[in-house]
Amino acid sequence: MTQTLQVSLGDRSYPIHIGQDLLSRADFILPYLKSKQVAIVTNTTVAPLYLEKLTQTLTSEGVSITNIILPDGERFKNAETLNTIYDTLLQNRCERNTTLIALGGGVIGDLTGYAAATYLRGVPFIQIPTTLLAQVDSSVGGKTGINHPLGKNMIGAFYQPQVVLADIETLKTLPTRELSAGLAEVIKYGLIRDLPFFEWLEKNMPDLVKLESAAIAYAVYRSCENKAEVVSADERESGERALLNLGHTFGHAIENAMGYGVWLHGEAVAAGTVLAADFSRRLGWLDAEQFARISQILKAALLPVDAPDLGVDRYLDLMGLDKKVENGKIRLVLQQGIGKSVITSDYDTQKLRDTLSLAP
Amino acid sequence: MTQTLQVSLGDRSYPIHIGQDLLSRADFILPYLKSKQVAIVTNTTVAPLYLEKLTQTLTSEGVSITNIILPDGERFKNAETLNTIYDTLLQNRCERNTTLIALGGGVIGDLTGYAAATYLRGVPFIQIPTTLLAQVDSSVGGKTGINHPLGKNMIGAFYQPQVVLADIETLKTLPTRELSAGLAEVIKYGLIRDLPFFEWLEKNMPDLVKLESAAIAYAVYRSCENKAEVVSADERESGERALLNLGHTFGHAIENAMGYGVWLHGEAVAAGTVLAADFSRRLGWLDAEQFARISQILKAALLPVDAPDLGVDRYLDLMGLDKKVENGKIRLVLQQGIGKSVITSDYDTQKLRDTLSLAP
Repeated sequence: MTQTLQVSLGDRSYPIHIGQDLLSRADFILPYLKSKQVAIVTNTTVAPLYLEKLTQTLTSEGVSITNIILPDGERFKNAETLNTIYDTLLQNRCERNTTLIALGGGVIGDLTGYAAATYLRGVPFIQIPTTLLAQVDSSVGGKTGINHPLGKNMIGAFYQPQVVLADIETLKTLPTRELSAGLAEVIKYGLIRDLPFFEWLEKNMPDLVKLESAAIAYAVYRSCENKAEVVSADERESGERALLNLGHTFGHAIENAMGYGVWLHGEAVAAGTVLAADFSRRLGWLDAEQFARISQILKAALLPVDAPDLGVDRYLDLMGLDKKVENGKIRLVLQQGIGKSVITSDYDTQKLRDTLSLAP
Repeated sequence: MTQTLQVSLGDRSYPIHIGQDLLSRADFILPYLKSKQVAIVTNTTVAPLYLEKLTQTLTSEGVSITNIILPDGERFKNAETLNTIYDTLLQNRCERNTTLIALGGGVIGDLTGYAAATYLRGVPFIQIPTTLLAQVDSSVGGKTGINHPLGKNMIGAFYQPQVVLADIETLKTLPTRELSAGLAEVIKYGLIRDLPFFEWLEKNMPDLVKLESAAIAYAVYRSCENKAEVVSADERESGERALLNLGHTFGHAIENAMGYGVWLHGEAVAAGTVLAADFSRRLGWLDAEQFARISQILKAALLPVDAPDLGVDRYLDLMGLDKKVENGKIRLVLQQGIGKSVITSDYDTQKLRDTLSLAP
């Protein structure tokens, strides 16, 4: 069974299809091609698993394909890899009506989307996310970009895909750590805006960790639904969309300090979410039981809940580089109970320092 | 006297102010700043001439400025220079509400606009073009980007400025060759859609070459008016906007073959315009007298009218890399008389080869 959601963004609206065996569904791809030319961008891990199937689906419809197979990993989400994409597109004379297809996780989606946003000032692209993180978060909403030595996702564009295909079959080959990393973002939607979903997750986390199909399909659908609502209301993150960054300002500092790719993004977000919850608790916005539930569900998803001890000043320094800074003061997404987040730079800085010192 | 035009693009609309002494007009800049932080991007040629004046105007209003002074020249319009901008912005912790100001010619405008489009997924920017080419063409319409070793302007984005300030005083320091290069684009507006302007240019070219203020102000205004109309109707170049590329497909081949920067862009466009006119003549769309008028006005603007002999196949090869290719066939902007251009890929290829062989 396939479920379909719509991301409503005026003339940039697009559907998300969620289900099984979507890689063989030419009917979900062909209507969006402007010519029978595509370039599939994937990586050395995903290509052996799924590239042949997608290739068969497209070539049987007469589509000609340029393959761009990149090395796997967050550390390759940079200007050099981006240039590899440009080079291949130019060498193959890919034109303005060539569609780029991102087949892979968040790194492939971000790189491909950014290449699509900037190649010849913009060509169409399609997201086929193959990790849970990409299916529930990064493939939806049009954030694209690359990392810079001085910070993550510092260079990028808002650029929406034509369609997203989330094939939950592809999650079967996902390493456990990456499945958990995706669950961090799933949990996030419950925390920031969807208490009933949070409660559902508390009950069903064991099934999700075991990758039980019906549970996973529901979690992906509900997550995409939440994300689509937020993005439709605030495409360029001038308001509510910033709530999706729960745990991310702390998390980016962790990823940056440990070296990109040492902690998975979702792992850093999980530990960052606990820091945000701890700070919210110190501000009196979360009680001890609520804090314990947040910590507990992340643990049940097999995620790290203990942030590394970087030292308070290093944390503040790295967090200050984050895009969510305004007039020099760090804006943070914090919890006011479960199911409600706020974004604020109006807080007691000493309490933030207490949180970052990992004091009990 | 200052004249103002509006580029109408819905919520991305913006004004163009044209006049003298605009660098001291804080009132044209301050309303567009989201914070009192700006980064001025300029080059080693323009900085000694105009950076101090602009700096005084802004600092007297309490604006804090980061200066980014780049080497001068088309060959620096590349990924490496772009990265210099990113590095400086990040090192100075420029935030999402920092406005980038492009102070310079087309290269500075394209680089700065593209940096603004992609830094933190987009920050505001202001164009202060200091060359005629930039004032009448590249600063208006939101085309931004950089060159790639395999082709000019291959990487980029459509990204509109907040406001454009065209100070015709700054043209007084412009080398004669660059003034002429700008006139190539001025003439283009007459050729593609404005016969009365073309006739005005035929009469007033001697004054324009002498940089007579009233004539220049009128030419800049009328050119921007034409460009604004075209861009408002077709922001992303799906139709009419492509007419603005008259002479450019040929011209880009010339620039690329000769090495970027050897021929100025406007010089290559001038020779390319003659090639387009020659091809139009061979197709029977232009008579001998019209062809002569086109050639004559370009000469009066002190522009080259003889394209270099690259060989037919080299021309076709380089032109095939241009963005204006569709399904493998080269689309060209051609003349149907003076004041009317069309874009077409429906033509006799042998006649194109005759034009490119520079046969009489």
